[in-house]
Amino acid sequence: MIYFNCDYMEGAHPNILKRLQETNMDKTVGYGDDPYTESARARIREACDAPDSEVMLLVGGTQTNDVVIASFLQPYQGVIAPTNGHIARHEAGAIEHSGHKVLALPGENYKLSADQIREYCWLYYKDASKDHMVMPGMVYISQPTEYGTIYSLEELTAIRRVCDEYDLALYVDGARLAYALGSSENDVTLKDLARLTDVFYIGGTKCGALFGEAVVVRDPGRVPHMFMIAKQHGAVLAKGRLLGIQFDELFKDDLYLQIGRHAIDMAMKIKNACREKGYVFYNDSPTNQQFVVISNEQEKAMSQWLEIEMDDTYDEDHIVMRLCTSWATREEDVDALIERL
Amino acid sequence: MIYFNCDYMEGAHPNILKRLQETNMDKTVGYGDDPYTESARARIREACDAPDSEVMLLVGGTQTNDVVIASFLQPYQGVIAPTNGHIARHEAGAIEHSGHKVLALPGENYKLSADQIREYCWLYYKDASKDHMVMPGMVYISQPTEYGTIYSLEELTAIRRVCDEYDLALYVDGARLAYALGSSENDVTLKDLARLTDVFYIGGTKCGALFGEAVVVRDPGRVPHMFMIAKQHGAVLAKGRLLGIQFDELFKDDLYLQIGRHAIDMAMKIKNACREKGYVFYNDSPTNQQFVVISNEQEKAMSQWLEIEMDDTYDEDHIVMRLCTSWATREEDVDALIERL
Amino acid sequence: MIYFNCDYMEGAHPNILKRLQETNMDKTVGYGDDPYTESARARIREACDAPDSEVMLLVGGTQTNDVVIASFLQPYQGVIAPTNGHIARHEAGAIEHSGHKVLALPGENYKLSADQIREYCWLYYKDASKDHMVMPGMVYISQPTEYGTIYSLEELTAIRRVCDEYDLALYVDGARLAYALGSSENDVTLKDLARLTDVFYIGGTKCGALFGEAVVVRDPGRVPHMFMIAKQHGAVLAKGRLLGIQFDELFKDDLYLQIGRHAIDMAMKIKNACREKGYVFYNDSPTNQQFVVISNEQEKAMSQWLEIEMDDTYDEDHIVMRLCTSWATREEDVDALIERL
Amino acid sequence: MIYFNCDYMEGAHPNILKRLQETNMDKTVGYGDDPYTESARARIREACDAPDSEVMLLVGGTQTNDVVIASFLQPYQGVIAPTNGHIARHEAGAIEHSGHKVLALPGENYKLSADQIREYCWLYYKDASKDHMVMPGMVYISQPTEYGTIYSLEELTAIRRVCDEYDLALYVDGARLAYALGSSENDVTLKDLARLTDVFYIGGTKCGALFGEAVVVRDPGRVPHMFMIAKQHGAVLAKGRLLGIQFDELFKDDLYLQIGRHAIDMAMKIKNACREKGYVFYNDSPTNQQFVVISNEQEKAMSQWLEIEMDDTYDEDHIVMRLCTSWATREEDVDALIERL
Repeated sequence: MIYFNCDYMEGAHPNILKRLQETNMDKTVGYGDDPYTESARARIREACDAPDSEVMLLVGGTQTNDVVIASFLQPYQGVIAPTNGHIARHEAGAIEHSGHKVLALPGENYKLSADQIREYCWLYYKDASKDHMVMPGMVYISQPTEYGTIYSLEELTAIRRVCDEYDLALYVDGARLAYALGSSENDVTLKDLARLTDVFYIGGTKCGALFGEAVVVRDPGRVPHMFMIAKQHGAVLAKGRLLGIQFDELFKDDLYLQIGRHAIDMAMKIKNACREKGYVFYNDSPTNQQFVVISNEQEKAMSQWLEIEMDDTYDEDHIVMRLCTSWATREEDVDALIERL
Repeated sequence: MIYFNCDYMEGAHPNILKRLQETNMDKTVGYGDDPYTESARARIREACDAPDSEVMLLVGGTQTNDVVIASFLQPYQGVIAPTNGHIARHEAGAIEHSGHKVLALPGENYKLSADQIREYCWLYYKDASKDHMVMPGMVYISQPTEYGTIYSLEELTAIRRVCDEYDLALYVDGARLAYALGSSENDVTLKDLARLTDVFYIGGTKCGALFGEAVVVRDPGRVPHMFMIAKQHGAVLAKGRLLGIQFDELFKDDLYLQIGRHAIDMAMKIKNACREKGYVFYNDSPTNQQFVVISNEQEKAMSQWLEIEMDDTYDEDHIVMRLCTSWATREEDVDALIERL
Repeated sequence: MIYFNCDYMEGAHPNILKRLQETNMDKTVGYGDDPYTESARARIREACDAPDSEVMLLVGGTQTNDVVIASFLQPYQGVIAPTNGHIARHEAGAIEHSGHKVLALPGENYKLSADQIREYCWLYYKDASKDHMVMPGMVYISQPTEYGTIYSLEELTAIRRVCDEYDLALYVDGARLAYALGSSENDVTLKDLARLTDVFYIGGTKCGALFGEAVVVRDPGRVPHMFMIAKQHGAVLAKGRLLGIQFDELFKDDLYLQIGRHAIDMAMKIKNACREKGYVFYNDSPTNQQFVVISNEQEKAMSQWLEIEMDDTYDEDHIVMRLCTSWATREEDVDALIERL
Repeated sequence: MIYFNCDYMEGAHPNILKRLQETNMDKTVGYGDDPYTESARARIREACDAPDSEVMLLVGGTQTNDVVIASFLQPYQGVIAPTNGHIARHEAGAIEHSGHKVLALPGENYKLSADQIREYCWLYYKDASKDHMVMPGMVYISQPTEYGTIYSLEELTAIRRVCDEYDLALYVDGARLAYALGSSENDVTLKDLARLTDVFYIGGTKCGALFGEAVVVRDPGRVPHMFMIAKQHGAVLAKGRLLGIQFDELFKDDLYLQIGRHAIDMAMKIKNACREKGYVFYNDSPTNQQFVVISNEQEKAMSQWLEIEMDDTYDEDHIVMRLCTSWATREEDVDALIERL
């Protein structure tokens, strides 16, 4: 059986396991006040060129979105997100559980545009009933998106501008950030993210770690008790050092970027091969997730040797199949896949 | 100045004020355990031909929607509603504050169809990630809708069927129910609502009362502690009898139906006059709210003598103006309006 | 049957009903933007000598507590209250429903002291685990308390001081405020409350109105979107003018103070008579609620002619009976009660 | 420096790290549907003699308490807990964030008794205002307690009985369960817990794992969508197998019990040595946490060589110091401590 259905099927990058082993019997305090976490924070701040930012390490993506959004929004505010955004579709109502409405906009190519955010806010603020409506307080986007597309620096800068106009916090979900950073089409760096967003997170779970997401807050004074909100949401890991150790490794010697580049190399190899073999793509993704349209018969045949994740029904006769690469993808498996396709 | 902008500009039907006066110094227990409330409940049960139903009287519409939805849904469930439904747009996030997602569907003519609910649920239940998504647990519709349209008995019956298929509670918001019941195009009676919904409410605030909405629950055993949820939501009126007195009057001698018919008579008079004068309607409403498209210049001119509520920007040069009638509309005001139009 | 069991058994002061009648067919906008509400606000601001304060009119007490507390607290903060405080016992968890913990302290004579608040905060801030504990963000007290006792100006001033030391908002629940203001032992005026608290409310429901509570916020800039929070909590009355009219009447010609004084006169007459007849009091209440200890046999006998509300089991053989007066208490009923006692 | 301040200072038992290493490149599906988790669940069910129970693996303690309580309670219900219970003091309001009140009772020796639960419920159900009060729906206790004491089988059985009388779910927080199971004074087995509680959890974080808690639900039909609630609370780990691997190891060859016994042996050695040297204990703990009263001067002197966690101010001149052992405690460190004491 060949597996390209998902990008979190394996454990962690070997460096991380090695370090966990080496440090196992060290004694540290809990909740992120340990020296490994301090070191990880320092490395991330440096990579982001953001010495005054706060870095908070959390366990998982839904948890991170919940904690960040609850920390930044007032009770009467909601968060603008694309219809396909993770918080809008696949978090079982976590954002609403914390009392906030997700203000979902359709997006284009799975991305929000500055113009559509502006129009939404303009309509809101000119509405005579606006005090009976949820006030937009944040923009949530993913880089890369859930469908592999990426925001350009120009697009992100334009979104920043509309956020400033309408006093919106800008939040970028980077669950797969390594795979945007590693894409040859990408021109948004960590430093850009740290500069243009109010808060973003650097995904670990899908990018080399056992688990973990690193939240970078540009102006920590704006959310002074984020730790308490995290604790209240059950999101504080007792042995916080486990997160520290992992991100310390990921940000040592550019490992995080290498991981991203490797996954993209593998993805492009698959993409090119598929194209040559005449497969039709659902969209044009420059990152580690490729979405291929196959017929129901193809699905049936391929599922004998390939674990298939169906992402959407394309039409009555076709489905959209997702092929993912990751830090863990081996070139021999890619070759095996290409041969069978 | 002429006012047709809204249907809750006045106090209450004279019968209600009279009864409040007569009973003012009576001593009763609080929280709805008084004899007036008992009488009102009995009258409503009878009008609905629903002797086993529970009737709960609350103060306002948003409050009622919040309490009903919180009572019927499990924490992981959301409520399907049309994009223009009151809970989706104009309740400042009250439903989300109680932790539930509003699953908004576009609707047609401001109404949901059984087919679109079925398709939504079908997609949900066949999705491999459904446990990461909000489970639909209820359908919310308004009768009449926020834009004056009404569901036919056939449409409502079809929706009931899909609710049974997918184990959804059906909830009808009847904030302006008198004005559906009074419409000549309506074929859905109170008895139909009591039979086809799991819960609905009979609007008082916009239909003759100072305030108040009467919730009718078909199977009270399903939500055994709804009073406690109401209390927890700050929705229990200390002097509950004020609600009892009002609904007792509204359901005495068919007053509620008379109120509806009067408002419709007045609305149709306006509608016909507008048509004759060549005004264009935004949609075809058979109830007390009429939506007329006027140009920006017309708006400017008319706003000298008419209080205008703009419901939508129609295009760059036109807006949608709402004209409402109610129990309190006097025919001489209608005539004056028509003359000026 | 004689009734002194409760202070909200009747409708409203005649002036209020009269004014509702007179204004019934006036047309006004909704949600509190009408001229009656504006007038009521102005009168309340004047009575409080607080021209810069915001006055918000809401329907009921639990609702008011919920909205105020949700408006002032951050998500990670809780509210200090006495164990017997209304929010701690009798609101079915409304405060927790909005996500805030009630930090209940035992109190003395049903009141919190500045010292015990200070000790609580001191312990909190010196605790190494304080970020794992709910941060105190507000002090909630009732004037008069649920057991009829009142805070002196000295006590209230001391509490203000500790609130300043620990950055706590001070909130006074005045559900029965008229009956504190009317007490001969009271030295805390409306002006003192407006000056010493961050927010307090002037109770209408139990003090002459059909319903309604007037929230006075000292520094409105601190809670800029309180209306939206009220809306989100289902607490905005569509016909807001009903609240405006009532408070406009209550604050015309000192009616509110007269109401308080009358109830106290009646209560003191009962208190003195009970004392003379040898009844034992549960506590020494200078306000409209008197708590008398009676034996189980007495209860049985008296319940033939007196509606009895038992407030507590005193011991195996005795209960605590509450006797309340209000704006509506007639002297002949008091005389009848005294004769029978 | 010597460290006995805390029981989660190190990583994980070597078996766990070894297994993580061995399985690192295996490909599995996420969210707990992998074979490691299935094996762990089977082992736990067997150890509990509870073949029909559901076992859910979560990351941390506060998260687990939040998810379990939110899954079992109705919105209008609260959870009875001792004043010193973790949910009442050290979870930053997580339970309230999910809308539930913690009904804190003082307890004795940090434990609740069946009688005090019964009295609380009896008072609740006979209170005429009970529908205005939070309904008790669950009892939360910890085994061992936060202060090291343990419930006997007799005590637990009595609590089960009162839970049956008042329809309360019984929930046992076993964050340190290994250290109760390992105590010579303990007579409550895993099988007893599975039989007597509705739900309990087996702590991993403090008992040998990197992180993880295993929730055992006696009657899974009672909480059919607990996974969705976990997801909504951000509590579902993407690589669920990490939890599966850990608990699979902990429940292989009785490792969990061995871990417990080792920690207790070390704790008893310290306890006996302290006693002989004349130290005074704050309470009599038969488990891995020992609480010693020391003077402020002692603290000052000892803090030169011992990391001290102060658990309470005993009086002006004394504090309570906590000494913890764990799976990771080495006998040479115990000997070093004893020598220095």
